[in-house]
Amino acid sequence: MAQEARRLADPTALIAALTALLGDNRVSTNPGILDRHGHDESYHPTHAPDVVVFPQSTEEVAQVMRLARRHAAPVIPFGVGTSLEGHVAALQGGVSVDLSGMNQIIEVNGDDLDVQVQAGVTRKQLNAHLRDAGLFFPIDPGADATIGGMTSTRASGTNAVRYGTMRENVLGLTVVLADGRVIKTGGRARKSAAGYDLTRLFVGSEGTLGVITEIRLRLYGIPEAIAAAVAPFPTIGEAVNTVIRIIQSGIPVARIELLDEVQMDAVNRYSQLDYPVAPTLFFEFHGSEAGVTEQSDAVKMIASDFGGTDFRWSTRAEERNKLWQARHDAYYAGINLRPGAKGWPTDVCVPISRLADCIVATKADIAASGLLAPIVGHVGDGNFHTNMIIDPANPAELAAAEAFNQRLVARALEMGGTCTGEHGIGYGKIAFLEQEHGAEAVQLMRLLKQSIDPDNRLNPGKIFRN
Amino acid sequence: MAQEARRLADPTALIAALTALLGDNRVSTNPGILDRHGHDESYHPTHAPDVVVFPQSTEEVAQVMRLARRHAAPVIPFGVGTSLEGHVAALQGGVSVDLSGMNQIIEVNGDDLDVQVQAGVTRKQLNAHLRDAGLFFPIDPGADATIGGMTSTRASGTNAVRYGTMRENVLGLTVVLADGRVIKTGGRARKSAAGYDLTRLFVGSEGTLGVITEIRLRLYGIPEAIAAAVAPFPTIGEAVNTVIRIIQSGIPVARIELLDEVQMDAVNRYSQLDYPVAPTLFFEFHGSEAGVTEQSDAVKMIASDFGGTDFRWSTRAEERNKLWQARHDAYYAGINLRPGAKGWPTDVCVPISRLADCIVATKADIAASGLLAPIVGHVGDGNFHTNMIIDPANPAELAAAEAFNQRLVARALEMGGTCTGEHGIGYGKIAFLEQEHGAEAVQLMRLLKQSIDPDNRLNPGKIFRN
Repeated sequence: MAQEARRLADPTALIAALTALLGDNRVSTNPGILDRHGHDESYHPTHAPDVVVFPQSTEEVAQVMRLARRHAAPVIPFGVGTSLEGHVAALQGGVSVDLSGMNQIIEVNGDDLDVQVQAGVTRKQLNAHLRDAGLFFPIDPGADATIGGMTSTRASGTNAVRYGTMRENVLGLTVVLADGRVIKTGGRARKSAAGYDLTRLFVGSEGTLGVITEIRLRLYGIPEAIAAAVAPFPTIGEAVNTVIRIIQSGIPVARIELLDEVQMDAVNRYSQLDYPVAPTLFFEFHGSEAGVTEQSDAVKMIASDFGGTDFRWSTRAEERNKLWQARHDAYYAGINLRPGAKGWPTDVCVPISRLADCIVATKADIAASGLLAPIVGHVGDGNFHTNMIIDPANPAELAAAEAFNQRLVARALEMGGTCTGEHGIGYGKIAFLEQEHGAEAVQLMRLLKQSIDPDNRLNPGKIFRN
Repeated sequence: MAQEARRLADPTALIAALTALLGDNRVSTNPGILDRHGHDESYHPTHAPDVVVFPQSTEEVAQVMRLARRHAAPVIPFGVGTSLEGHVAALQGGVSVDLSGMNQIIEVNGDDLDVQVQAGVTRKQLNAHLRDAGLFFPIDPGADATIGGMTSTRASGTNAVRYGTMRENVLGLTVVLADGRVIKTGGRARKSAAGYDLTRLFVGSEGTLGVITEIRLRLYGIPEAIAAAVAPFPTIGEAVNTVIRIIQSGIPVARIELLDEVQMDAVNRYSQLDYPVAPTLFFEFHGSEAGVTEQSDAVKMIASDFGGTDFRWSTRAEERNKLWQARHDAYYAGINLRPGAKGWPTDVCVPISRLADCIVATKADIAASGLLAPIVGHVGDGNFHTNMIIDPANPAELAAAEAFNQRLVARALEMGGTCTGEHGIGYGKIAFLEQEHGAEAVQLMRLLKQSIDPDNRLNPGKIFRN
């Protein structure tokens, strides 16, 4: 970027102006609040902002942006802080814009299967609101993230194999630009060929191009029938080969998740469960009664070819929720294996045909490196994580984890994959962006950033190094 | 744009340089060739380029771009010229880059359901190539367009209701930028959160940001079972309400097409068929045998509630192809109603709940305006066309058509829709872009254009007025 990293010499005047705008209760310099807004759920160290604001409308965000511009201050959007590559860290200080108070569900259109929400609405809040209307929003990254945060990181998670990611499910946005102008992108029509796809430009832009304040999403009817199952496999290779065959067969499974034996052990301990300690697939099927039966029969047939015969089924909502809660707690269950440790969750995605090669090689790498690193994955997409359970204060462990992560990304890229399937670049993966896309493509990304945010004040130091 | 419209004072030196690069056979100033490259299939008048080149590789396109830059010449990508809003017209002269010779299918990955093609491959060529592998590419705009052209206009067509549009089905691109640099976007992983979504920025950019030379596409397995049906309805409102109910029920129909009674009459005449002259829905169902039966039973039940009881079924491929050929020929069938006339095909898309209101009001408007304008639509998406059959040399007819088109777009926008579902902006719909997205969003689009193509040489005068 053109501009060097800088902190405000004295944020006092900015803080006074923000307080005049929002009042004492919605502007904070409390050290605990600043600290909370300086880090996410990963091992990345805290970089606290100078001030945190709590706007309640797009217009207030626009006014905050204009004040920040006048004071040359960085602006970092914040949802609930569940990101994993340091996205919310205020590397150069500035204003953390906490959108969690913007949690209104503005408009549900059941007839058109769409909804408009403010950025601070969380996915669980949204689904609780939709349930009585027989509707749901499928994107489920595990954490109860905000829709704004999920949009900014192009989140996906367990249901993406059937319903796509945020890329496919965001219909339009309201965005506050660096100078305080407000734009609306997209619309309510299911498709459009009218001009550049600004919506997709902002989806996954990690707060570096504007602050997303409202999102219009696609919804789905709650399926007539849902069934879930858990099945252990003799080896991780056989589990993954089952997934590959299912995907190649075009069976529209709603979820296919892999947990390796280390992760299953952790889940059993954390959630008081008694699953076999073996590489395990978690499935969910959505459709009509007949469709779900057909899908699950086809999956059972494929799994049995790879030694997966012990299916445990759940058709009751309560049982299913327990099963998926165990899956969602996998990250915390992993960290819980070693008290006081932090998680470094990696995140690669490869073409489905290479997934078994990639995971088997990664397991061998984990064994050779001596790391404690359970594997979990949204394997239907070719996406998996190893969660390295480390003491970030131990330089040798950090170095081993970093070297492992580099080898993992190199392996994924060599197989035609990506350095991040869903967590994003943040400031943890900047080095890999050019390896993946090439210098010319990253130059073009930088050009877009420089054009839209010429002063480099929007989440500086993320996606690109300064 | 910063730059005024301009033609090369003397293209001789540029033509000589292009000929030195590509040889006599792949550089043309033949008046017939120039004329052919100055217009598409619609009523828009011809604007011939100064020269047409026929490159065979990305590197040749890059060299053409560098020469064009040195000579300050506009560059207009050209596939097979089936666009409908004047996209290929050389409004300021310059070099038409005909990519139809770049028709290699580079790599089919059956195991990952993806394919890489050069931009000049047509959709029929691709599907003929894929058939023996049991695969297909679903996006089908009717015309046998090139994949490059379809990418550039964010095409969709009959299968989009089930499989999405080019937006959802392009995995990555090779693009030559205005200065001759080559970038690669996207990748083979099914999802990625690595940086800005350059792929989606170029999809639908109509040649204004770069020349797309290679495209990686998502593929699908040919379904186990396919069934198609045609059903007439008492009124167009009942036909459309059937569609609305089907979509709201989440039935995964592969195609739902509407043809009004005027269009059915045209199709019968053009394709020697004997369908009832009534508002008619064309359906196609994809899935397992049981799934297709389930879908078609559900559809028949809904249709019967709206007086659609006379389903004519085709399960044999040959019959189905005949049926869809008749649908695809609808545009030509319409023009054929009035020898010597041209078609002005409109293209709006509204939220599905408003589709019946929009189509019924549009039928009334057609009746009041005295235009001959059959209606056809990809109604499952909320997208429909009226094809105004006019004599473009008759100013009164042109004025009536233009006024009708403006009312149609206003009606769609008022209902939360878009001014173009799939044809794009070209230079026929520039006036509507700002009406739809607002001045601020269009300013941002212009900023992107100016940053990426600062001399405004890439398809100038499209999407934005100079």
